[in-house]
Amino acid sequence: MRNKNIAGLTHLGSGDTSYIFQYDPTLLECFDNKHPEHDYFVQFKCPEFTSLCPMTGQPDFATIIVNYIPDKKLVESKSLKLYLFSFRNHGDFHEDVVNIIMKDFIALIDPKYIEVVGEFTPRGGISIHPFANYAQTGTKWENFRDQRLLSYGNK
Amino acid sequence: MRNKNIAGLTHLGSGDTSYIFQYDPTLLECFDNKHPEHDYFVQFKCPEFTSLCPMTGQPDFATIIVNYIPDKKLVESKSLKLYLFSFRNHGDFHEDVVNIIMKDFIALIDPKYIEVVGEFTPRGGISIHPFANYAQTGTKWENFRDQRLLSYGNK
Amino acid sequence: MRNKNIAGLTHLGSGDTSYIFQYDPTLLECFDNKHPEHDYFVQFKCPEFTSLCPMTGQPDFATIIVNYIPDKKLVESKSLKLYLFSFRNHGDFHEDVVNIIMKDFIALIDPKYIEVVGEFTPRGGISIHPFANYAQTGTKWENFRDQRLLSYGNK
Amino acid sequence: MRNKNIAGLTHLGSGDTSYIFQYDPTLLECFDNKHPEHDYFVQFKCPEFTSLCPMTGQPDFATIIVNYIPDKKLVESKSLKLYLFSFRNHGDFHEDVVNIIMKDFIALIDPKYIEVVGEFTPRGGISIHPFANYAQTGTKWENFRDQRLLSYGNK
Amino acid sequence: MRNKNIAGLTHLGSGDTSYIFQYDPTLLECFDNKHPEHDYFVQFKCPEFTSLCPMTGQPDFATIIVNYIPDKKLVESKSLKLYLFSFRNHGDFHEDVVNIIMKDFIALIDPKYIEVVGEFTPRGGISIHPFANYAQTGTKWENFRDQRLLSYGNK
Amino acid sequence: MRNKNIAGLTHLGSGDTSYIFQYDPTLLECFDNKHPEHDYFVQFKCPEFTSLCPMTGQPDFATIIVNYIPDKKLVESKSLKLYLFSFRNHGDFHEDVVNIIMKDFIALIDPKYIEVVGEFTPRGGISIHPFANYAQTGTKWENFRDQRLLSYGNK
Amino acid sequence: MRNKNIAGLTHLGSGDTSYIFQYDPTLLECFDNKHPEHDYFVQFKCPEFTSLCPMTGQPDFATIIVNYIPDKKLVESKSLKLYLFSFRNHGDFHEDVVNIIMKDFIALIDPKYIEVVGEFTPRGGISIHPFANYAQTGTKWENFRDQRLLSYGNK
Amino acid sequence: MRNKNIAGLTHLGSGDTSYIFQYDPTLLECFDNKHPEHDYFVQFKCPEFTSLCPMTGQPDFATIIVNYIPDKKLVESKSLKLYLFSFRNHGDFHEDVVNIIMKDFIALIDPKYIEVVGEFTPRGGISIHPFANYAQTGTKWENFRDQRLLSYGNK
Amino acid sequence: MRNKNIAGLTHLGSGDTSYIFQYDPTLLECFDNKHPEHDYFVQFKCPEFTSLCPMTGQPDFATIIVNYIPDKKLVESKSLKLYLFSFRNHGDFHEDVVNIIMKDFIALIDPKYIEVVGEFTPRGGISIHPFANYAQTGTKWENFRDQRLLSYGNK
Amino acid sequence: MRNKNIAGLTHLGSGDTSYIFQYDPTLLECFDNKHPEHDYFVQFKCPEFTSLCPMTGQPDFATIIVNYIPDKKLVESKSLKLYLFSFRNHGDFHEDVVNIIMKDFIALIDPKYIEVVGEFTPRGGISIHPFANYAQTGTKWENFRDQRLLSYGNK
Ligand SMILES: [Ca+2]
Ligand SMILES: [Ca+2]
Ligand SMILES: [Ca+2]
Ligand SMILES: [Ca+2]
Ligand SMILES: [Ca+2]
Ligand SMILES: [Ca+2]
Ligand SMILES: [Ca+2]
Ligand SMILES: [Ca+2]
Ligand SMILES: [Ca+2]
Ligand SMILES: [Ca+2]
Ligand SMILES: [Ca+2]
Ligand SMILES: [Ca+2]
Ligand SMILES: [Ca+2]
Ligand SMILES: [Ca+2]
Ligand SMILES: [Ca+2]
Ligand SMILES: [Ca+2]
Repeated sequence: MRNKNIAGLTHLGSGDTSYIFQYDPTLLECFDNKHPEHDYFVQFKCPEFTSLCPMTGQPDFATIIVNYIPDKKLVESKSLKLYLFSFRNHGDFHEDVVNIIMKDFIALIDPKYIEVVGEFTPRGGISIHPFANYAQTGTKWENFRDQRLLSYGNK
Repeated sequence: MRNKNIAGLTHLGSGDTSYIFQYDPTLLECFDNKHPEHDYFVQFKCPEFTSLCPMTGQPDFATIIVNYIPDKKLVESKSLKLYLFSFRNHGDFHEDVVNIIMKDFIALIDPKYIEVVGEFTPRGGISIHPFANYAQTGTKWENFRDQRLLSYGNK
Repeated sequence: MRNKNIAGLTHLGSGDTSYIFQYDPTLLECFDNKHPEHDYFVQFKCPEFTSLCPMTGQPDFATIIVNYIPDKKLVESKSLKLYLFSFRNHGDFHEDVVNIIMKDFIALIDPKYIEVVGEFTPRGGISIHPFANYAQTGTKWENFRDQRLLSYGNK
Repeated sequence: MRNKNIAGLTHLGSGDTSYIFQYDPTLLECFDNKHPEHDYFVQFKCPEFTSLCPMTGQPDFATIIVNYIPDKKLVESKSLKLYLFSFRNHGDFHEDVVNIIMKDFIALIDPKYIEVVGEFTPRGGISIHPFANYAQTGTKWENFRDQRLLSYGNK
Repeated sequence: MRNKNIAGLTHLGSGDTSYIFQYDPTLLECFDNKHPEHDYFVQFKCPEFTSLCPMTGQPDFATIIVNYIPDKKLVESKSLKLYLFSFRNHGDFHEDVVNIIMKDFIALIDPKYIEVVGEFTPRGGISIHPFANYAQTGTKWENFRDQRLLSYGNK
Repeated sequence: MRNKNIAGLTHLGSGDTSYIFQYDPTLLECFDNKHPEHDYFVQFKCPEFTSLCPMTGQPDFATIIVNYIPDKKLVESKSLKLYLFSFRNHGDFHEDVVNIIMKDFIALIDPKYIEVVGEFTPRGGISIHPFANYAQTGTKWENFRDQRLLSYGNK
Repeated sequence: MRNKNIAGLTHLGSGDTSYIFQYDPTLLECFDNKHPEHDYFVQFKCPEFTSLCPMTGQPDFATIIVNYIPDKKLVESKSLKLYLFSFRNHGDFHEDVVNIIMKDFIALIDPKYIEVVGEFTPRGGISIHPFANYAQTGTKWENFRDQRLLSYGNK
Repeated sequence: MRNKNIAGLTHLGSGDTSYIFQYDPTLLECFDNKHPEHDYFVQFKCPEFTSLCPMTGQPDFATIIVNYIPDKKLVESKSLKLYLFSFRNHGDFHEDVVNIIMKDFIALIDPKYIEVVGEFTPRGGISIHPFANYAQTGTKWENFRDQRLLSYGNK
Repeated sequence: MRNKNIAGLTHLGSGDTSYIFQYDPTLLECFDNKHPEHDYFVQFKCPEFTSLCPMTGQPDFATIIVNYIPDKKLVESKSLKLYLFSFRNHGDFHEDVVNIIMKDFIALIDPKYIEVVGEFTPRGGISIHPFANYAQTGTKWENFRDQRLLSYGNK
Repeated sequence: MRNKNIAGLTHLGSGDTSYIFQYDPTLLECFDNKHPEHDYFVQFKCPEFTSLCPMTGQPDFATIIVNYIPDKKLVESKSLKLYLFSFRNHGDFHEDVVNIIMKDFIALIDPKYIEVVGEFTPRGGISIHPFANYAQTGTKWENFRDQRLLSYGNK
């Protein structure tokens, strides 16, 4: 309850918090896929993403969307939240943020297929939306990956 | 009429109601498909789904969407309502809820094709939308299933 | 003008009107296709459809959408209005309504391709949207039909 | 369940149902207001209203909205549904429908204040939206009524 | 993390959770208003409200909106979440739910002004939206209350 | 039916039709107000209005909205349609169109209050929306008129 | 300027204008395609289309959408405006309007591919949306045409 | 026609055009108000406004909305377009642009009442929307002005 | 240009940036009001606000809206951006954030009137939107303040 | 800060600014692609594009959308902004603008695939949306290009 921990306010104001606001891929965790007999998609929508511009140091904002088809593991959603927190005071280009998130998912759970989109808010009247995807090599999912890339943003 | 059964209020307040709020797949019922000469889709949209988080016990909310192509049987819509009620005080991960509903449809009516989506409301700023699908093995519908998975959420 | 025919109000209030509110497929009429050299789609959107629930007798409401590619004949739109009126006091399941409308179009004009969707309003928090389609047998349109079914509702 | 009462389909198709589709104000019922110490609004939104045009006999469609401040009684919502069903095969001008519904509410529960809007779908490219309201005479609610009329549709 | 507490799933499935799903007004808590020098509004939007119908025992769904001007105390938002959870297996009419929530706020924090709206999802094609409000007696806020009631839903 | 009157197509193509496409205020007709005991609004929305630009002769398009409170007479909606048709090949400035429609309503039915808005589509990237209103002189409606003008377009 | 040419108002009111409001395909003009090395689409959206119903003589309204891939020529947009004006007092069925516009484009510029959609506003609660397309015979664009027809309106 | 004046392209590319892209209030013109017997609003919506930032020289974009009640004169819409063009290569703060436009209207036509809003697109994630208004001094419109300021942006 | 300063990426990754992410009211700056003869509103919309929850240390997100009527000074928009950046790693309750921002504006420019809204994204399914306002004491703006509070959020 | 550089206002008003408002392709710059191991899309959305009509010299407005798959280089977003500024006082047909932007991207970074859309605002009630695309010759991307063209605008 808020009225019971009021001292916490000053504490946190001093920067003394256990959340990590510098990029840390070890925050991402996983658990077992209990439904391996069917291929299925899991979609994460994360409209509260923020990082810093590597050129100016100013905050950037985006909605990050991850769609993946699990193999043996799924990404745990609370750990995903903490992992995305870790970009808060970290600087990277938009194109890099999207590729980095995708690679961290691959390293942790090696999904059959994954795609990551970053819908960044405009700067100077222009917005950038990178889209990256991946499939396990030597599998039918490589054709799946090519088809998804082909269809991106073609409304 | 409400003014005639007012005693019912206290009754129900005591928890004495005939609806089942613990997961019960036997609630789902079916009837015969009268149009077997054409393959067709039936779509159910269920925006009032609620279950409990298996980790915290807190309520979760979702829109469940089921699209299927019937074989010999169709799912009866009032029984679907009662079946979805049975998740009310039941706990499962989002990915499991979607797979469980799909498997219960398969067990009851073995459709030519079925897909289930769960659009869960956000927690901690992140929302999860699992999508699972299935087709009768050894039929042309297996290719149909693969194509639907390929197209999911690729607006 | 309304002020000139005011007696009509009582008349109609007595149920004495020439419109038919019981299902009557003979109301649907057609005329010649003047553009047979190009295959083209005609779409009808009918947001004012109402029929009765066959189980409870209560009114149901839907938007009916018909997309078809004519062969030698087109459906006349005013006769379609009268035909849809004829479901007003008629009872059928949602899945049946959609299949019946499709079959009546086929019987009248045998289109190269046709599809019918019924977007029914929710009952008990669940809405049902059946989608049926058809193609002339032994033609290339059968593949067209399969592809349209594959793509339905996969946004 | 649908599969248990399948004979009902034919039955109802014969027009043999207990619902009333000719205007009947006795269908509207009420119950006691348990919160008389606070004035409060109750809003009903009824998007599935249909009646007949008194001039042509053709179906009309509307969303009926009722906002009222109860005095001693409230209108029971299921009886409201049945009451609105009774306009189904009944003919009246749009302006009359709205005034008639308002007067039936007044006769049954004499609310402190009530307003009724009918948002009818277009005919010949023109739509009509009548708005009527009422307040108990000799009370402060008469000024309330005048203010609400003044504010209608002034977006 | 989900993968560390997997036994919890069965546990909760057995109904053994610490959340209260029967109406309990003691769950609502408060803390001090630190800005008494300015009158200000606090708005809570709660789109995940669910309770049971007192007549049928079936689930109801609503968005509950609370707008209030604090006096000495504010309602703590996490306790509000727990308090609203307590309606989950509880039965009450829509008009009662809104008045009960308002009265519990008044009992706890006696705000200068408060209003509560319940936007319930439709049943039988009709939705009900009750709106109740209150002001401290003998203050200028009573006129404020009357003006807010006058303006409700008059788009 | 279209297939029975196919000769009509050429006929009309020759311009031989009974509709009037030059401004004619005599087309507007009225009927008696059966509910004089309550003041109420009638709103007409007419999204299919077209006239000609008096400077260039090019077509203009608008949605015309009329809100009025009847006194002894109401405007008949089919005659309104025919009256608005009569602007089709007629030229007037946007500000004039709105004032002319208002004055024709006043001349025919002298309503207690009336307002007319014309939402014209843009030309050269600029759209014009005139709003005119009127009240019977020497009545309380003059204050009503002033208040409505004050509130126009102030979202 | 409007204040300088005020006499024009009366002039035009007399019907003496140089715009053509009877169907005239010679109004459509073209110019050279300067980018023949890339196949590209040009889309025209024309929300202000109006013609007359050939059965009743009443005005119809539509949005006309033309998508085409030019070969040696492009359609000039101001001439398209004048060409569409020429349907103003002309009568044709919705299905004919769409096919006629397509054929006039083909006659003038023989594009590699073209499609025309007419989104007509509802009459009697039903709206009609015809879609026609074409490709140069003996080219790869014929397959393109078949694929576009297959995908139409299948959201 | 484009194909007839193709040399014009190079000409204009050289900057030799008769439009004025430096602020010039003399471009605004007016004509007589033919309806002085009714006070009425005229609204201009101008979504294509662009000027330059006076600090950085970079382009700014806005929708300019002008609402005014004419006295003896109205602003001519084509001259308004040319007047707004004249801000194209001109630099001013957002707050100044809105006040300058208002003052130029006052100087030209001295309306009974006028208000100007500038909805500028965001820079650095922040957008600015100034709103200025005016009334003839010593008239009832001064109270009108105060009420409009009071209501601005209070949705 | 990004390709010229690529070393900056690592630099910023180390936290060495000149932006201030701890609350600092001295960042807010002002400039002179050049239009004191008219009272006018300035609205700032800031959809990219983020701070930390004082209880949990987790990020919060909001749109901050400031509406004010300047007296002698205006707030400079780039300094407002920097000032809002300073909440990035700072913890405060939603109700406090809104009151603090308002007080910092008052301290710097003492506007005739000001209001601040914070539309915070949901946590646990509940969102909080505080609204605070202020007027110079002893002026007519105090009534203005009361009226704006009365109208808040009353759609 | 605005209050520190106030002299700049007059300076810029004199047209003395360093931004280039005549078409200049050398403004576009690039940097290295750090993720060549995955093909990915980058999307730019530019809703603030303006150029001049080559026939009339009047301003045109559009949203320019660029989607490309980089090979060795990416386009730098701030340089894109400056490059698009350079169309401000430049005249070209809509179809040319889109092809020119595409060719300038190809000349600078030779992407594997690129497409450019220009959504121009309406003139005379008609809007034009050109879409051009390209792929490296002799690669699999040529088929990708053909498929994207096939899917354009076919919602
Ligand atoms: Ca996007
Ligand atoms: Ca979310
Ligand atoms: Ca989704
Ligand atoms: Ca659907
Ligand atoms: Ca209609
Ligand atoms: Ca309305
Ligand atoms: Ca319902
Ligand atoms: Ca409501
Ligand atoms: Ca407009
Ligand atoms: Ca308007
Ligand atoms: Ca359509
Ligand atoms: Ca921006
Ligand atoms: Ca605004
Ligand atoms: Ca949440
Ligand atoms: Ca809000
Ligand atoms: Ca367009």
